[in-house]
Amino acid sequence: MTDRFQPKPEDRFTFGLWTVGNPGRDPFGEPVRTPWSPVEIANVLAEVGAYGVNFHDNDLVPIDASFEEKRKIVSDFRRALEETGLKVPMATVDLFRNPVFKDGAFTSNDPEVRAYAIRKTIEAIELGVELGAEIFVLWGGREGTEVDASKDPVTALKRHREAINYLCDYVLDRGYRLKFALEAKPNEPRSDLYLPTTGAMLGYIDTLDHPEMVGVNPEVAHERMAGLNVYHAVAQALERGKLLHIDLNDQQIGRFDQDLRFGSADIKGAFFLVKLLEDYQYQGPRHFDAHAYRTEDLEGVKDFAKGCMRTYLILKEKVKRFNEDREIQDLLKKINAGREVAGFEFRYSPEAHRSLMDYEFSREKMAEKSMYYERLDQLTMEILLGVR
Amino acid sequence: MTDRFQPKPEDRFTFGLWTVGNPGRDPFGEPVRTPWSPVEIANVLAEVGAYGVNFHDNDLVPIDASFEEKRKIVSDFRRALEETGLKVPMATVDLFRNPVFKDGAFTSNDPEVRAYAIRKTIEAIELGVELGAEIFVLWGGREGTEVDASKDPVTALKRHREAINYLCDYVLDRGYRLKFALEAKPNEPRSDLYLPTTGAMLGYIDTLDHPEMVGVNPEVAHERMAGLNVYHAVAQALERGKLLHIDLNDQQIGRFDQDLRFGSADIKGAFFLVKLLEDYQYQGPRHFDAHAYRTEDLEGVKDFAKGCMRTYLILKEKVKRFNEDREIQDLLKKINAGREVAGFEFRYSPEAHRSLMDYEFSREKMAEKSMYYERLDQLTMEILLGVR
Amino acid sequence: MTDRFQPKPEDRFTFGLWTVGNPGRDPFGEPVRTPWSPVEIANVLAEVGAYGVNFHDNDLVPIDASFEEKRKIVSDFRRALEETGLKVPMATVDLFRNPVFKDGAFTSNDPEVRAYAIRKTIEAIELGVELGAEIFVLWGGREGTEVDASKDPVTALKRHREAINYLCDYVLDRGYRLKFALEAKPNEPRSDLYLPTTGAMLGYIDTLDHPEMVGVNPEVAHERMAGLNVYHAVAQALERGKLLHIDLNDQQIGRFDQDLRFGSADIKGAFFLVKLLEDYQYQGPRHFDAHAYRTEDLEGVKDFAKGCMRTYLILKEKVKRFNEDREIQDLLKKINAGREVAGFEFRYSPEAHRSLMDYEFSREKMAEKSMYYERLDQLTMEILLGVR
Amino acid sequence: MTDRFQPKPEDRFTFGLWTVGNPGRDPFGEPVRTPWSPVEIANVLAEVGAYGVNFHDNDLVPIDASFEEKRKIVSDFRRALEETGLKVPMATVDLFRNPVFKDGAFTSNDPEVRAYAIRKTIEAIELGVELGAEIFVLWGGREGTEVDASKDPVTALKRHREAINYLCDYVLDRGYRLKFALEAKPNEPRSDLYLPTTGAMLGYIDTLDHPEMVGVNPEVAHERMAGLNVYHAVAQALERGKLLHIDLNDQQIGRFDQDLRFGSADIKGAFFLVKLLEDYQYQGPRHFDAHAYRTEDLEGVKDFAKGCMRTYLILKEKVKRFNEDREIQDLLKKINAGREVAGFEFRYSPEAHRSLMDYEFSREKMAEKSMYYERLDQLTMEILLGVR
Repeated sequence: MTDRFQPKPEDRFTFGLWTVGNPGRDPFGEPVRTPWSPVEIANVLAEVGAYGVNFHDNDLVPIDASFEEKRKIVSDFRRALEETGLKVPMATVDLFRNPVFKDGAFTSNDPEVRAYAIRKTIEAIELGVELGAEIFVLWGGREGTEVDASKDPVTALKRHREAINYLCDYVLDRGYRLKFALEAKPNEPRSDLYLPTTGAMLGYIDTLDHPEMVGVNPEVAHERMAGLNVYHAVAQALERGKLLHIDLNDQQIGRFDQDLRFGSADIKGAFFLVKLLEDYQYQGPRHFDAHAYRTEDLEGVKDFAKGCMRTYLILKEKVKRFNEDREIQDLLKKINAGREVAGFEFRYSPEAHRSLMDYEFSREKMAEKSMYYERLDQLTMEILLGVR
Repeated sequence: MTDRFQPKPEDRFTFGLWTVGNPGRDPFGEPVRTPWSPVEIANVLAEVGAYGVNFHDNDLVPIDASFEEKRKIVSDFRRALEETGLKVPMATVDLFRNPVFKDGAFTSNDPEVRAYAIRKTIEAIELGVELGAEIFVLWGGREGTEVDASKDPVTALKRHREAINYLCDYVLDRGYRLKFALEAKPNEPRSDLYLPTTGAMLGYIDTLDHPEMVGVNPEVAHERMAGLNVYHAVAQALERGKLLHIDLNDQQIGRFDQDLRFGSADIKGAFFLVKLLEDYQYQGPRHFDAHAYRTEDLEGVKDFAKGCMRTYLILKEKVKRFNEDREIQDLLKKINAGREVAGFEFRYSPEAHRSLMDYEFSREKMAEKSMYYERLDQLTMEILLGVR
Repeated sequence: MTDRFQPKPEDRFTFGLWTVGNPGRDPFGEPVRTPWSPVEIANVLAEVGAYGVNFHDNDLVPIDASFEEKRKIVSDFRRALEETGLKVPMATVDLFRNPVFKDGAFTSNDPEVRAYAIRKTIEAIELGVELGAEIFVLWGGREGTEVDASKDPVTALKRHREAINYLCDYVLDRGYRLKFALEAKPNEPRSDLYLPTTGAMLGYIDTLDHPEMVGVNPEVAHERMAGLNVYHAVAQALERGKLLHIDLNDQQIGRFDQDLRFGSADIKGAFFLVKLLEDYQYQGPRHFDAHAYRTEDLEGVKDFAKGCMRTYLILKEKVKRFNEDREIQDLLKKINAGREVAGFEFRYSPEAHRSLMDYEFSREKMAEKSMYYERLDQLTMEILLGVR
Repeated sequence: MTDRFQPKPEDRFTFGLWTVGNPGRDPFGEPVRTPWSPVEIANVLAEVGAYGVNFHDNDLVPIDASFEEKRKIVSDFRRALEETGLKVPMATVDLFRNPVFKDGAFTSNDPEVRAYAIRKTIEAIELGVELGAEIFVLWGGREGTEVDASKDPVTALKRHREAINYLCDYVLDRGYRLKFALEAKPNEPRSDLYLPTTGAMLGYIDTLDHPEMVGVNPEVAHERMAGLNVYHAVAQALERGKLLHIDLNDQQIGRFDQDLRFGSADIKGAFFLVKLLEDYQYQGPRHFDAHAYRTEDLEGVKDFAKGCMRTYLILKEKVKRFNEDREIQDLLKKINAGREVAGFEFRYSPEAHRSLMDYEFSREKMAEKSMYYERLDQLTMEILLGVR
């Protein structure tokens, strides 16, 4: 039974250095694990069947590393990649951990900090490109406020746009094959973050100089923190051709950022998300941006990583079963059947319009149509529960 | 003291027929008030100092009215408008109350229902235009799901787009001066609504055939249901030139749609929202989409309407005070001061870039800068509390 | 495969008249179903395998019924009970739907309303007792506020206590074998309800004159509206011997009261709840306080009712599997193993205390112990998903 | 204007060492401030007008301090207390920061850890008593789960009770004048904490061996994390005589634990809380369990501390104004007027009951009574906004 849920590189599962490398520190507790080094993480990820590994600049190279230290680290890591066959599909930049960013990076009130944030990102881009990344994620952990008096949100957006435009121009100038994936989060660590949802990011991208270079990186936990339906949010991005990357994890609604093992909280939501990615043949990496519970030692971290991938594969199998289930598919046919309005095709023309205005609608008859949604949902649950 | 908070038509305060006309029914209780008729509402609104009145088609004309009944109602209402001087800046359509829409209107699985929803909207547009509306709000109360198996969210978006494109083409064809303002809501009455936030709406508008005809109508309560910062959400719309209309009310985060009197729950958020609208000279109506508590009789409904406007004007005065407060403005100057990076202007060019890369940043020095945000926020609170 | 999930009366599944009789009205929509009569509901419930049927006074007897109408209704219903074999384990009173209760029943500011609420409850008790109920649920849907200035919460509690004490004395005086089960809810229809959680109810019961007659009726959806862990809340009630009744349904956290089909949103939480009830041999009814989606017709209502029971039975089977799973049970043994402190038994005595103070603890060693929680949770998920 | 909001020791304002000593670390960021030493904090608190200072054992004495180091620290701190006149009304124990507690302290699955937690608490009690504390707060930051399979919540409660009973017996045995105040929190750092609300704590206290020694320490932020009305929660504790201590701060609903400056998020809720404490002459300390934003330096920390106290005093003045406002008090009189049911006094007796059953209620008349709640709430807002 186990074998079919064994991850393989072609599943395109990736983890960040910061995920399996999380030391288990939280706001009320000290670290509980001495994490593996980047090279060790690469080995562990290869061992458990991952396709790739992603990083923030400072996951790999400490912020205070000298030039020589940096070269050594990068070269060791590159060798580990070669030995394991792991890829680096995505890189990102840490614009949140150092006190310099305490009031924002691209949106800081201090022009020097804003400039520094761009420079740090440029260097992180170079590091990512050097190691093969074609996607660059930007998560603005400090781009927000506790004190709305301190910053005009209109100004904040303008500053943010200046930074993204700069980065796009830089990448174009260098001729890199790199796209930016913007990651939204409603709050934490700031009280309120700007552009707090994937939807808001989509609404922002069109205002950029190079929207074609920019997409989104939705994160399950982040949408759920706002109580939103992740499946819908990711579908909006996908429908626009903007789903460049995805952060799979889990979360209880309405609380602190939990970054739980994929599928461990909202299994039904996870199922529909996998269904979307598989049905629409999403080609990007399946990135798990989660970490093991603070109760775990390093063995537990491996259990965590394996569990993420295993649950994805279990759900992928269930998607297939759902798509092939005769009773479900028959119900879906009935649900989607309906009378057409002759001559009307949901595209305006004077003729179509006349057909619409002349048609005799019966609200009563339309309202009587059976929906079968309780049955359909129960069948879905039973697929999930493995009893059909 | 009272006089300066007396609303005047030039304040552009509007109410919907459904707001002061709300009968006080809720999921667990029967109606408690026999609401005024549309004509009576117009008179009440004029009496309390409003500028205009808005409506859903069926607030004014019952869904089953005959042609003659409709003409009589409209003509009576028009006369009331003339007598009171009230305007109708906005109209909208009810695509949620009748059972025919139980599974959606523009996104229904039944093509006949989708066609009917477009037709009903066309008729509501005609009614709105006839009475002078230049903004048409679309809130898709049933465009969502409880059962994600029942509807592909990608398909749902495509259907929604077909409808909006149709409506835009229709309006263009008729030569009406009318813009559409899309109103988002995360949930209720459906478990999850598509395009659940103002941000998501902004991300959707650019995919339309006529994005220039479409903007948003953010509602305070709806953003807060998702725990989002309303000030930020409205600022994003405003910065894009998409703030066509606004629904002012209030709400506790993370619960059922409360539609509370403006400013009665989150006074600080309301202050910043008024500040945004006033500082940026928002020209649209200030629409109160709220209703009186179910405890109230018709006198209480008047108290409610007066309270909405009064609180807006009190906050508007506080915005002025904030903007003129010497200590606050001095703090803001200090907060916004900072060193520039010579030769770098947040716009990419090889020269600017060289300046950036050559600059010597000191993270320690940048991190040391004082922020004064506790002080600033306390001063803001004291402006709000009227003790400075 | 189906047969083993067929409900039987000994499963003690019950439904309220108001659940399968819900007409599908919501704050934004008119009713979509003409519900069955009480007698028809009894027949439907018997058909689908329920054990019993519960009701609010006015579910069975309209508030305006004459004495003769009431006797006819009750006698018809009693005959239906006899014919079907259905029991009435629980009855309750509607103190929320009529406008008279718009500002509370037992906690109203009007002494006449408070008295009326007690009298209405007395009459509902008589009705319940007549039909065999031994549990009387009290849910105070209007016992709360939107306006905290209107009511002192200390006074509100005192009024509530007067009412409950009165009701207990009445029941004692009559010699009825009836217990009261208090049901908490955080909000809706009021902005904030008093005693908003099962925990708060437990904290209140001890202040009553007859705490031994009073317990709780936790509702899954209500605890989840506050983002609380239902399993923990019910465990606290059970551990105190106060779990008299339970309302099974489901809910997304942090939104309006959804009353979803049991297990359809939080399947993991539902599993642990079933595990608690079964492992501790809870003897009370398993009451489903939910309703079908507004999309459903009467066939859909049956699907809904069947789904609730079926999911319970599926989860009950999974509980058995979990309890018998060798790997899980071995992990649990390891997890619960640990060194004892010699001479110390978690009960104070000078000797035990000396043992405790003399013991040499090694924080490092204790902290090193492996927990295996990621593995355990993954195995639990795989039991749930039916892949082990 | 400033003078009347100057805090004085008789206001009984207290802060924890950990509050003004917070270094500004968060899950995504490193510390930003080198906090003051305990002696420096005492001096700062005295300077800004506080009455007292509270601490966790390890705020004052590092967990690894030697006996000599401990004596030196305590003696220095005691001298600072004497010099400044500051009191230590409350002490508490840190059972969450060290990895040893990663899976709970009193509820750990490891009996050795449970014993260690009791011992550590005993030592913290000794430290508190030595410095004058008469209240001992217990917050079980790790008493909860991410993985419900790992721990039976019934067992967890029994273990917790053993620990509290032990501590009570210990204190009785020593003859200390010390009471325990239990502090609830719904989640964070664990996914779900046991006894998650003040209400749940009240429901638990009666199961202890010495309930008379145990009360609660409600925290504004913690109740709001669950979306609950803090005013109601504290009122329940106060009405039971269990309000031993209070943690004043602020919080947006439904997100991570923010510990904001008192009154800075929910000013209306803060007003009613102050009103409750003042109207009922609460005698305990007003403890601010909050911290400065991560943007602040040490001057900002002072601003934060001053702001907490100042806002309390501003609100206290507004409470007086509310209580003396003629229009408000007249409204409250009308609101509370109502007809009595002759012979009925909300206390059961056969005679009273007869009066109740014989009375002729008119639902229509009762429902017609005006409530004036919109007006009352608006007047309250205007008191808060300082425009009346």
